[in-house]
Amino acid sequence: MAKYIYAFHEGNREMKSILGGKGANLAEMTLLDLPVPPGFTITTEACEQYLKDGSFFGGFDEELARYLEEVEEKLGSKFGDDNNPLLVSVRSGAAVSMPGMMDTILNLGLNDKTVLGLLKKTGNERFCYDAYRRFVNMFGNVVLGVAHDNFEEEMDKLKEKKGVKLDTDLDAEDLKALVESFKKVVMDSTGAGFPDDPREQLKLAIKAVFDSWNNDRAKTYRRLNDIVGLKGTAVNVQAMVFGNMGGTSGTGVAFTRNPSTGEKEFYGEFLMNAQGEDVVAGIRTPQKLSQLNDVMPEVYKELDAVREKLEAHYRDMQDIEFTIQEGKLFMLQTRSGKRTAKAQVNIACDMVDEGLITRDEALLRIDANRMNQLLHPDIDPDAEKNVIAKGLPASPGAACGRVVFTADDASDWKFNRDEKVILVRKETSPEDIHGMHASQGILTSTGGMTSHAAVVARGMGKCCIAGCNDISVDLKNKVLRVGPLEVQEGDYITLNGSTGEVILGEVPMVDPELTDNFKKILDWSNEIKRLKVRVNADTPLDAKVGREFGAEGIGLCRTEHMFFDEDRIKAVRKMILSISEEGRRGALETILPMQQKDFEGIFREMDGLPVTIRLLDPPLHEFLPQKEDQILELAEEMGMEIDKLKRVIDQLHEINPMLGHRGSRLGLTNPEIYEMQVKAIIQAGIAVSKDGIKVLPEIELPFIACEDELVRGRAAILDVIKQYGDAVNFECRIGTMIELPRACLTADELAQHADFFSFGTNDLTQTTWGMSRDDSGKFLNYYLENGVLERDPSSAIDQKGVGKLMDTCVQLGRKAKKDIEIGICGEQGGEPSSVEFCHKIGLDYVSLSPYRVPIARIAAAQAALKNK
Amino acid sequence: MAKYIYAFHEGNREMKSILGGKGANLAEMTLLDLPVPPGFTITTEACEQYLKDGSFFGGFDEELARYLEEVEEKLGSKFGDDNNPLLVSVRSGAAVSMPGMMDTILNLGLNDKTVLGLLKKTGNERFCYDAYRRFVNMFGNVVLGVAHDNFEEEMDKLKEKKGVKLDTDLDAEDLKALVESFKKVVMDSTGAGFPDDPREQLKLAIKAVFDSWNNDRAKTYRRLNDIVGLKGTAVNVQAMVFGNMGGTSGTGVAFTRNPSTGEKEFYGEFLMNAQGEDVVAGIRTPQKLSQLNDVMPEVYKELDAVREKLEAHYRDMQDIEFTIQEGKLFMLQTRSGKRTAKAQVNIACDMVDEGLITRDEALLRIDANRMNQLLHPDIDPDAEKNVIAKGLPASPGAACGRVVFTADDASDWKFNRDEKVILVRKETSPEDIHGMHASQGILTSTGGMTSHAAVVARGMGKCCIAGCNDISVDLKNKVLRVGPLEVQEGDYITLNGSTGEVILGEVPMVDPELTDNFKKILDWSNEIKRLKVRVNADTPLDAKVGREFGAEGIGLCRTEHMFFDEDRIKAVRKMILSISEEGRRGALETILPMQQKDFEGIFREMDGLPVTIRLLDPPLHEFLPQKEDQILELAEEMGMEIDKLKRVIDQLHEINPMLGHRGSRLGLTNPEIYEMQVKAIIQAGIAVSKDGIKVLPEIELPFIACEDELVRGRAAILDVIKQYGDAVNFECRIGTMIELPRACLTADELAQHADFFSFGTNDLTQTTWGMSRDDSGKFLNYYLENGVLERDPSSAIDQKGVGKLMDTCVQLGRKAKKDIEIGICGEQGGEPSSVEFCHKIGLDYVSLSPYRVPIARIAAAQAALKNK
Repeated sequence: MAKYIYAFHEGNREMKSILGGKGANLAEMTLLDLPVPPGFTITTEACEQYLKDGSFFGGFDEELARYLEEVEEKLGSKFGDDNNPLLVSVRSGAAVSMPGMMDTILNLGLNDKTVLGLLKKTGNERFCYDAYRRFVNMFGNVVLGVAHDNFEEEMDKLKEKKGVKLDTDLDAEDLKALVESFKKVVMDSTGAGFPDDPREQLKLAIKAVFDSWNNDRAKTYRRLNDIVGLKGTAVNVQAMVFGNMGGTSGTGVAFTRNPSTGEKEFYGEFLMNAQGEDVVAGIRTPQKLSQLNDVMPEVYKELDAVREKLEAHYRDMQDIEFTIQEGKLFMLQTRSGKRTAKAQVNIACDMVDEGLITRDEALLRIDANRMNQLLHPDIDPDAEKNVIAKGLPASPGAACGRVVFTADDASDWKFNRDEKVILVRKETSPEDIHGMHASQGILTSTGGMTSHAAVVARGMGKCCIAGCNDISVDLKNKVLRVGPLEVQEGDYITLNGSTGEVILGEVPMVDPELTDNFKKILDWSNEIKRLKVRVNADTPLDAKVGREFGAEGIGLCRTEHMFFDEDRIKAVRKMILSISEEGRRGALETILPMQQKDFEGIFREMDGLPVTIRLLDPPLHEFLPQKEDQILELAEEMGMEIDKLKRVIDQLHEINPMLGHRGSRLGLTNPEIYEMQVKAIIQAGIAVSKDGIKVLPEIELPFIACEDELVRGRAAILDVIKQYGDAVNFECRIGTMIELPRACLTADELAQHADFFSFGTNDLTQTTWGMSRDDSGKFLNYYLENGVLERDPSSAIDQKGVGKLMDTCVQLGRKAKKDIEIGICGEQGGEPSSVEFCHKIGLDYVSLSPYRVPIARIAAAQAALKNK
Repeated sequence: MAKYIYAFHEGNREMKSILGGKGANLAEMTLLDLPVPPGFTITTEACEQYLKDGSFFGGFDEELARYLEEVEEKLGSKFGDDNNPLLVSVRSGAAVSMPGMMDTILNLGLNDKTVLGLLKKTGNERFCYDAYRRFVNMFGNVVLGVAHDNFEEEMDKLKEKKGVKLDTDLDAEDLKALVESFKKVVMDSTGAGFPDDPREQLKLAIKAVFDSWNNDRAKTYRRLNDIVGLKGTAVNVQAMVFGNMGGTSGTGVAFTRNPSTGEKEFYGEFLMNAQGEDVVAGIRTPQKLSQLNDVMPEVYKELDAVREKLEAHYRDMQDIEFTIQEGKLFMLQTRSGKRTAKAQVNIACDMVDEGLITRDEALLRIDANRMNQLLHPDIDPDAEKNVIAKGLPASPGAACGRVVFTADDASDWKFNRDEKVILVRKETSPEDIHGMHASQGILTSTGGMTSHAAVVARGMGKCCIAGCNDISVDLKNKVLRVGPLEVQEGDYITLNGSTGEVILGEVPMVDPELTDNFKKILDWSNEIKRLKVRVNADTPLDAKVGREFGAEGIGLCRTEHMFFDEDRIKAVRKMILSISEEGRRGALETILPMQQKDFEGIFREMDGLPVTIRLLDPPLHEFLPQKEDQILELAEEMGMEIDKLKRVIDQLHEINPMLGHRGSRLGLTNPEIYEMQVKAIIQAGIAVSKDGIKVLPEIELPFIACEDELVRGRAAILDVIKQYGDAVNFECRIGTMIELPRACLTADELAQHADFFSFGTNDLTQTTWGMSRDDSGKFLNYYLENGVLERDPSSAIDQKGVGKLMDTCVQLGRKAKKDIEIGICGEQGGEPSSVEFCHKIGLDYVSLSPYRVPIARIAAAQAALKNK
């Protein structure tokens, strides 16, 4: 039989895939002789088997009993014993950490008899019934599915009756009564009594943990974090230790370095006389870890030693959980700590300086995607700010949006109304994940730096202010109050996640500045990466930003955006509405100098670097108005009969514009357009060359499906260039975008007429999948929420489908022309797994928006390291 | 140096690719000792070289002189000689016959001096100047580009002046004057004198023939006939013989069998005292060939012997041209004769019976596509017919449409107004090709069975009535007159191409009946083919017709067409507009019995054969009205506020519906629809099974892009089927349409969850090419006319692109599931080259519309023969 259960002393940290992260690290800490309460782990393979078969593996009961017995022997207590009962915690733990996603049960093993045994052992009646009521609540909620609110209500009723405010003000008798009313809640909700048999409790709890692997929150989390390929969750059954046994007991969480800044300081929080859930849930506001030194200096010293031991051993910043039971320290968890992008960078650089890790290791530890945080605008320090409140700076960055009060509203405003929102909650819970995802930032009125909101927001790279006690949230009336000030739903606020400031209204932002450590990471990346990184830039400003971020050229300059400028759209429309070619040429003549000027500006910024310019791509109707009043206006402006104008608009209308008369198709039927554009490029090149600027234009034909389109398109471009004779003293390359399946499949033919290829993976994905991004909203959300797709195909290269075509294209293209330059433009090329794929299939460069250039540089270096 | 010129006696019929069809056959006839005037052929390779370099090959003049000399020696005359001049014809001839497409010049070598030499030789002044004026006209038109009308005008002026009606009424002096006025026409038009030097004439003529390879008519012809991969045209220079030297001279064309019916009779026409152009152009109405036996029995006997010799030698029906010069027969051309579909079938069967060819040869000679002609409805013999005129039955079949008088109008009415048209002309010319292509049928008032209109119409498989002298065509007023009756542009007429009857108005049609010979061909096909042939049928009637034509199952039954029925669309709309799932289910309940009844009818027709039923494919908005008044009506009908209805319609609107919320995407988000459809299928199956009908449903999920869609879709179908338990006593297979590139690329994954694949090449072509058939009109015509594409990618499988994906799909699919059934539905599967491709990549069946089933059977057999 497969081994489905491991005692902690049987495992180690390499066994994450079967023990889960938590289990493997508990085993590792056990090996390191750290004070870990004994226990065992039921493997992810057991979960997989359970989910597949719908029942536990054969011999489960016997195995479970055997491992329980081992724990009992170690502690000299017995599970379910009336005199000296062993209590256990049951915790989930997958191979990848998913905070708050999976379920936990503490104090398992209690019933009306064992609680008396516990009392005998501890002599602390309040503690015993506190533990008991917590257990019934937790088990009732997590295992039996009774809403937490039902228990909360009973608690509130009792507190009201007793006239007290805090849980801790309730005495043993109160809690005893609470156990009974909690059990009644369970009976009322489920129609069955609370299970008294500890072994039945344990089995139900394990089942519940296994089942929770596929609950919606877990699936959403995995989807949002691209967690795929896991077997399931492991279950850790561990002897309980209690942080709530009185004044010398406590519990806390800590990071071996500051997870927000990366600073090398012992950072965390603790609560005396509390169980772990109190800290994590953010219901009581905890104390700073440094204060523990004042409260229990011996324990603090021991904990600090554990910190050093763990960092040296794991060679990474750790996130630990501990409990102090009557003055004795127990370690309940260690794992690599989640950290902000800034902390990632600083910790990686510091650890290289400390000699703890190598430069390559440091680079591989960077989550390139998260570097986004360091690259996005922050609040302008010089701006006037109406700071109305201050909370904990739980996740850095700045965010501005309209206030909403529920996760559903956040999602609705964002996706249906296209509004940026700030989610304001008293506290967040796993049910709020989708709303947090939809928000620019999160603001909570309670909870600490390690509360649910804070942890999840940091994970998402979103700005978050937690524990902002200044504000009160009136969910019912959808109002946020700060003293007499009322902020209504839909009002703008701005959050500064780095300072904790809540600001009324919209505040201007400034560009981020790269820190020295971040520059160091980028420099290392350049030393290692093989892929070049270019920028997608339609304006001199974009080009400038991209170059400052290290872009090695422009991979995509879209000329159509230039057409939409207010002073040009008129000429463009005149061109479209001209019946004769002469009329069209005349209109284009007026656009030429403007377009030339665009290119001059871009060439100047990119002096010495290649600039890929894509000729006009969208269908002409995109430049004409569709609404009645706009059409009227245009007709007047053009001195055209409205009916005639409508007829033209009608004629240009397309049923599937994505698959219509656009790109090189337009270039062939209306050659005057590309002719004007090529003239503008060449004239711009000639003009700036005179100033000593080195120009390297790469003219790109879009939307090519067959060889002859390219042959003719190329010939037409060369015809224009020839007109300028020797004045063209720079190399001008001609190539094509590869954005149709057929272009990939016939790349050997196309390569013969192209100096370069550039993958347009947006369109390539849409055609390969038959999925228009404009229309997929209606089913894609359903697909993602129900796991039909693990992620939106437009978010990263779909390696099984689109990637196969790309690989075919590269192979065919290179077979026909060995040294053809091949790159990718489009945001997929800035997504790290896609960058790695591009590296693997042998592309020459990726190209992406300016702020993603540094991310791609890191991802490219990581790709090179991983595929050495 | 490459050999660029071949004397006739140096070649043979195998050398078509370099000598062209005409040249190779002149060589072959020379080898057979038939009376062929001596000459030589300049090869297609010389044409290719000329078109590439823009000038003749090096040493051209010398070579030309050498071969001319050989001819001079044979005939004892000299090219350009003032006393005994050799005259030559210059004719084009590509490897594939293109009637009327390329240019011909006769009587070349004449000038003011050599015409006197000719006179000396013949003593016939009228003949000499007739030849001369014809030469100047033809050379002026074809080589120098002077419009034919200009010459015609001079001729008409002269005839008017002389008060005569026929050309033959003009005497020698008249013709002499005509030569001068023709030369003036040339001078006026071109600004240069008519070239007098015979060698210059010859070189200019050869150039003109070479250049004509790329004229628009030639390109159009090649495109319409899918003629690709040729080098160019050859040029045949041949000693002139004259059919216009008086009463014992003549010229004619003939077929060794009747090209219209296939009957074994010597069939053709001749004109005494005429040159070949008079017959082909249809200006004078010629005599039947049998009458030659009366006029010149010796010559007729000789010609009949030639006919027998040629048929026995070529083992195929021949199309021959001959000239009789002063009682002596000369052969000017032989080639495989074009024939109607009916004649193809009959000749093939007869020749097998005669032992001339084998069954396999006979099958391979059938142009499967052309069999269309035999399968389309004919005029109902019982219908009332108002026959207003009768002409020559030049190309069989029936056609009905609105009268138009120019090729441009035909094209405009057809493609811009979507009207069926009949093109009515005095006579047609190569300039009319596009109009003929656009028409249902062609009617001409002059010309014979071998006139331009007749030959081209037969080639196109279109109905044609030629030489209908009863009618007069008033082009200026766009009126067709038959006595006092006037038929205006836009009025309906009906043509019966098999009888020559012109009928006023629209006449009902009846289904064709398969002849015994055609059935024989189809039976042979079934013995040979490996591919199965299924029918695309949405109704019991389609199923019945398909089965009668030999369909071996239904390959595609589209369920959405059933939704559009007037009594169902209401329920469909109610379903779409229901907000709740219950509301939708209620509406679907009312559709279920109707849909069940459809399936029952189809299952009954297909008793014992598989029926592939595709679940709903189009997006829901297709079922809602788009126009204001229709929306108003629907709102009233549904008791719904108009604004609310508009909002729903707006919400359902898609930017690219082809790539939107359709197919299995809809099936997943709105599971109640497929559930109803599967219920209808299963209930129908159960119902008809009770009557002893054997049902074999294959339920098909459309528009699958990824594995999980298929997994879920299949599971949902199985869930429904399970509800019926043991009542389902038939096999019900579940599979998917393959219509997206990604489905092809991941076919190994999909095959694991599919009992069958069926290629939907319409959508697969559109996505692979990024080309929407609804929108491609705007550029596709340009592409075809300018040779960017050789044919519309939707007309036949694009083997380089789409075909590669199909091949990948078959290989991956079969690797994962060896015996997975793979077919193709969609009209491409009925196009012979596509059928062959499907055979080669190993598909199990093709499926197509009922009337194409026989075509596909033949094409499948041909594929098997060609790929033995």
